Amino acid sequence: MDIATLRANHPDHWKLATAIRALAMDAVQAANSGHPGMPMGMADVATVLYRNHLKFDASAPNWADRDRFILSAGHGSMLLYALLHLTGYKQATLDEVKNFRQWGSRMAGHPEYGHLEGVETTTGPLGQGISTAVGMAIAEKSMAARFGKKVVDHKIWVIAGDGCLMEGISQEAIGLAGKQELDNLIVLWDNNNITIDGRVTVSDITDQHKRFEASGWTTLACDGHDPADIDRALTEAKKAKGPVLVDCKTIIGFGSPNKADSYSVHGSPLGDAEIALTREVYGWGYGPFEIPAEIKAEWEAIGSKGASDRAEWEARLNGLSAAKKAEFERQMAGGVPKKLASAIRAFKKANSEAAPKVATRKASEMVLAAINPVVPETIGGSADLTGSNLTKTADMADFMPDNRKGRYVRYGIREHGMAAAMNGLWLHGGARPYGGTFFCFTDYARGAMRLSALMGVPAVYVMTHDSIGLGEDGPTHQPVEHLAICRATPNTWTFRPADVIETAEAWELAISAEKTPSVLALSRQNLPTLRKTHTNTNMVAKGAYVIEEAAGKRQAIIMATGSEVEIALKARDILQAQAIGTRVVSMPCMELFAAQDEAYRRKILPPGAVRVAVEAAVRQPWDRWLLGERGTEKKAGFVGMDSFGASAPAERLYAEFGITPEAVAEKVKSLL
Amino acid sequence: MDIATLRANHPDHWKLATAIRALAMDAVQAANSGHPGMPMGMADVATVLYRNHLKFDASAPNWADRDRFILSAGHGSMLLYALLHLTGYKQATLDEVKNFRQWGSRMAGHPEYGHLEGVETTTGPLGQGISTAVGMAIAEKSMAARFGKKVVDHKIWVIAGDGCLMEGISQEAIGLAGKQELDNLIVLWDNNNITIDGRVTVSDITDQHKRFEASGWTTLACDGHDPADIDRALTEAKKAKGPVLVDCKTIIGFGSPNKADSYSVHGSPLGDAEIALTREVYGWGYGPFEIPAEIKAEWEAIGSKGASDRAEWEARLNGLSAAKKAEFERQMAGGVPKKLASAIRAFKKANSEAAPKVATRKASEMVLAAINPVVPETIGGSADLTGSNLTKTADMADFMPDNRKGRYVRYGIREHGMAAAMNGLWLHGGARPYGGTFFCFTDYARGAMRLSALMGVPAVYVMTHDSIGLGEDGPTHQPVEHLAICRATPNTWTFRPADVIETAEAWELAISAEKTPSVLALSRQNLPTLRKTHTNTNMVAKGAYVIEEAAGKRQAIIMATGSEVEIALKARDILQAQAIGTRVVSMPCMELFAAQDEAYRRKILPPGAVRVAVEAAVRQPWDRWLLGERGTEKKAGFVGMDSFGASAPAERLYAEFGITPEAVAEKVKSLL
Repeated sequence: MDIATLRANHPDHWKLATAIRALAMDAVQAANSGHPGMPMGMADVATVLYRNHLKFDASAPNWADRDRFILSAGHGSMLLYALLHLTGYKQATLDEVKNFRQWGSRMAGHPEYGHLEGVETTTGPLGQGISTAVGMAIAEKSMAARFGKKVVDHKIWVIAGDGCLMEGISQEAIGLAGKQELDNLIVLWDNNNITIDGRVTVSDITDQHKRFEASGWTTLACDGHDPADIDRALTEAKKAKGPVLVDCKTIIGFGSPNKADSYSVHGSPLGDAEIALTREVYGWGYGPFEIPAEIKAEWEAIGSKGASDRAEWEARLNGLSAAKKAEFERQMAGGVPKKLASAIRAFKKANSEAAPKVATRKASEMVLAAINPVVPETIGGSADLTGSNLTKTADMADFMPDNRKGRYVRYGIREHGMAAAMNGLWLHGGARPYGGTFFCFTDYARGAMRLSALMGVPAVYVMTHDSIGLGEDGPTHQPVEHLAICRATPNTWTFRPADVIETAEAWELAISAEKTPSVLALSRQNLPTLRKTHTNTNMVAKGAYVIEEAAGKRQAIIMATGSEVEIALKARDILQAQAIGTRVVSMPCMELFAAQDEAYRRKILPPGAVRVAVEAAVRQPWDRWLLGERGTEKKAGFVGMDSFGASAPAERLYAEFGITPEAVAEKVKSLL
Repeated sequence: MDIATLRANHPDHWKLATAIRALAMDAVQAANSGHPGMPMGMADVATVLYRNHLKFDASAPNWADRDRFILSAGHGSMLLYALLHLTGYKQATLDEVKNFRQWGSRMAGHPEYGHLEGVETTTGPLGQGISTAVGMAIAEKSMAARFGKKVVDHKIWVIAGDGCLMEGISQEAIGLAGKQELDNLIVLWDNNNITIDGRVTVSDITDQHKRFEASGWTTLACDGHDPADIDRALTEAKKAKGPVLVDCKTIIGFGSPNKADSYSVHGSPLGDAEIALTREVYGWGYGPFEIPAEIKAEWEAIGSKGASDRAEWEARLNGLSAAKKAEFERQMAGGVPKKLASAIRAFKKANSEAAPKVATRKASEMVLAAINPVVPETIGGSADLTGSNLTKTADMADFMPDNRKGRYVRYGIREHGMAAAMNGLWLHGGARPYGGTFFCFTDYARGAMRLSALMGVPAVYVMTHDSIGLGEDGPTHQPVEHLAICRATPNTWTFRPADVIETAEAWELAISAEKTPSVLALSRQNLPTLRKTHTNTNMVAKGAYVIEEAAGKRQAIIMATGSEVEIALKARDILQAQAIGTRVVSMPCMELFAAQDEAYRRKILPPGAVRVAVEAAVRQPWDRWLLGERGTEKKAGFVGMDSFGASAPAERLYAEFGITPEAVAEKVKSLL
């Protein structure tokens, strides 16, 4: 629909949508940075969505049963910010709009979760929004099954652009959503046929309808500038079978006389002259950031129309039993049940006595068997490695279209989509996600794992097969740099437990976390129980601790993690037999050790002694502990990897790469 | 087709295919590790492919015009190894087969490029093979356009499983190949409906035909156990329009009475009892690893049937002009033209005089304008950020279906697919790939970038917007851990040049590399030319060097990279004004500095002085240079990032995060 017809036939809509467009142009111009074209192109769709379909109440941004709105095309952040401001979200003030993209503004360049109420997830890295939304849709179905449709019954709306749909992660999301028949998920595709490099057809000719339908989606289409047609499509979408793609044909930079329908309006301010011309086209005689009171009032009415829905919902929530309501609220708030601590303690006590020799991946499964019954909101899963990651416990059924109470998601061979879905599960509320793959395939999931850290989503990544210890699968499957990668990433706990007890302690921290994702790097190979004396204290919480003290004068400290702690202890045996007093420090979590006060760190790593670290991975993260903390180069050594691994049985690999008790002992002696 | 019919109707085929199956069963059993099900399932398809369609000569594994065969489902490595052994590849001895997955064997757990002739690329991480194949197909089209169909005219065959097709990267490959109408690419889909977690339908219901067709592929289908039907499909595939998917309906573990068609045969040995039963079903009365001479001879005849094709091709190659033939051979061998060195020298001379103040991404574009005309085999591209990465030079046209001479690939918003295609471009031969995206989106491309390093593919990753210096786009786009990630990865050169001259030197190293991929981390913001005195010597090749010596007694050394070298020099000005003699070391490549001898390293970082490093990224990789190399904690400091970034103009971010000349000077003074 062209502008003249739109203005003439839909004057009320026009005013509302133009307010979005004007704010987007003005804010990007004031920031001299940003993406005006997408908000201008999608303003009509967004207006119809917020006005007629989206269930929300601007005065209660965290209302549990609100519809979720995800701007997967996060560069168009001003679309979302304009909507939040206009509809009256308290934090979304006009000052914030004017401060778009500036230091301290809630309105960051891309929507940042936690900065501004109404931003449901961080977007910007393309494809993340649509994939995170799949997790939200799973959470909605799961909660509805557990607490009833009376209190959980809402939609997940996504706006995605061509960039989102070209990213591989979107295929993982499409496949997972289609299989799971997530009819609460509606993706509005901003089909403007423009990317940064020009027309979409420069790089892609995909028929998106056919592609989505291939995975079981319903597809619809509408003229993205015709409010009636948009409304028809969204109405149909809400009733359709399975997840829905709505193809919204739009013009990027709609109304800009010289820049519309071109990539030049994608990622740069229009410029004052073009803005003036565009205002003329819009018939918008107001100054920058000026929204007439009448139009603001109309938008605020839209922002408050959900209040009655919310009141009715609250009545229904109050109609639940007190216990059920309390449980609903606890799960939405995210805290873990008090019973967890005692379950972990009991587990540790039993296993420090039983002292099983198991791989830490197996230990993880054993701990999960203790956790899952007492933390009913865990949603587990694996990227098609269930039998290897050991992520499914006996009490868990598969989450499936015909069993929404199932708590185990078969994510398929989709590591990136899994990680993004885990973010969505948490962000939705009511679910505490964990998911497994091989540690090496952290590589595939990195994009979404980084967002867990950036957003403070306490997802738990169960990363098994954590070193050359996996053996014959060879270097493509053997992480050597991945511990360094996780440790270099801010706000990420990288746990590498040494035995069943440390695994339990790491799990306790990971599953209780509020703001930090965890990576559990777990062995394929069996490891003995090292902590045979039970303590209630969670030693892993300290990050590092003395697992075996030197006998006699302490001449050396061997630091190790995971499967190499056993090697360190054997090296100690060799050294002690030669009267070289050797302390062994287990360091299951460097981040937590770094967070201890200096006195504790010094207690664990006192100066003077030779320090040798052993880890079947690259040295980079170890220099701090070897050379820093009052260490000294002359008395420091490292036993680990400085290349990729190889294909052979694990024991042979450890021998060939020189990660053995003998090599560690020799290294110590060479430094004495 | 069932086994009885197959044996009865196709006895010759049956013997050949059964030899593959038997070797796969035996080798996996002997290794007590591996994946027998896929080779057993795909043996019929592979037999027909090698026997009737694949253009190859086992005696000349590197024949330039051979068809390429990529086992994307790399876990089924025994399929490939059996084929290479049976057809007579010299390196693929029976001893190697017996030594499958053992230390030092050429037959690693997954196919490893460089270990065994006939392995065209490393596979195992799912989806990589099919995506790498797209790059090979582009290289074939490009070389055919440049050297003529008489000498370049072959196919790229891929075997891919459900895992490959579920990974997001496959969608990027499918989209790119479809757009590019790569009719030299044929993907044989091992449609066995089994993944590790069970039936494919547990996690995916995608209609693959519809999905591939949506992106312009031709799709065909065949009974993967009926040689005639397979032959028909492959014959059609070679003549079809665009890239082709052949849906081969197969049974995993075909013939195993108790394990066929189940996930239990996917990733574990069958066990001696089941192998014996399967041998009975096969009517294969031979011992482990025993191949009757007659069958081996038939296979070897298949292996040598391409010899006449190859002889004819050689005649055609010799029919080229001497210059053209030499250029063909140079490009296939991979060395760079001698003119490159003088072009870079001239560039450096001109720019050290002109001393432009440009972003290093712009400097990179300027260098490329000098490189591309003298290195005609470069194939550039960007993941839809051409105008931001500045990867396209004026002499480059787009590689398109109607212009195969174009050397610039519009990869679309597909970072992972781009990186994999770059691997394929190089592995095919005749192309030297570089490609750009934002440095932060290294995250999306990691899977394939790691394979560049593992395989020794000298791809050049042009990663612009390399720090918080990108400004308003905010933390989702601001790398802080990515330098650490690249530096932690073995066999990767991570360059972060400080000005136009260092950018030229880094490019010279990157584009001349033979075995090492490079990451060029380049600034969005303008940087002054620091090296105004021309030297022919490539200083970046040393990894680090003194860019400004201390005046007076040297009390401090400031180390920096990229955009922070300017800050370091300004800090030096402050300190020198206070009579604190300060050396500034530019360290554009830690890997190359680490490779220098100790004398050189000590010359650059002599003991005694205070050391401060400044880099707008996490500290992890710096501890070695601050605390090691005779450094000491008491005299070492770091100015950089310990959190994610934020959204604001770049200068404000540097100020807020305390990465300023003043802060660096203060840090130095606090340590004196």
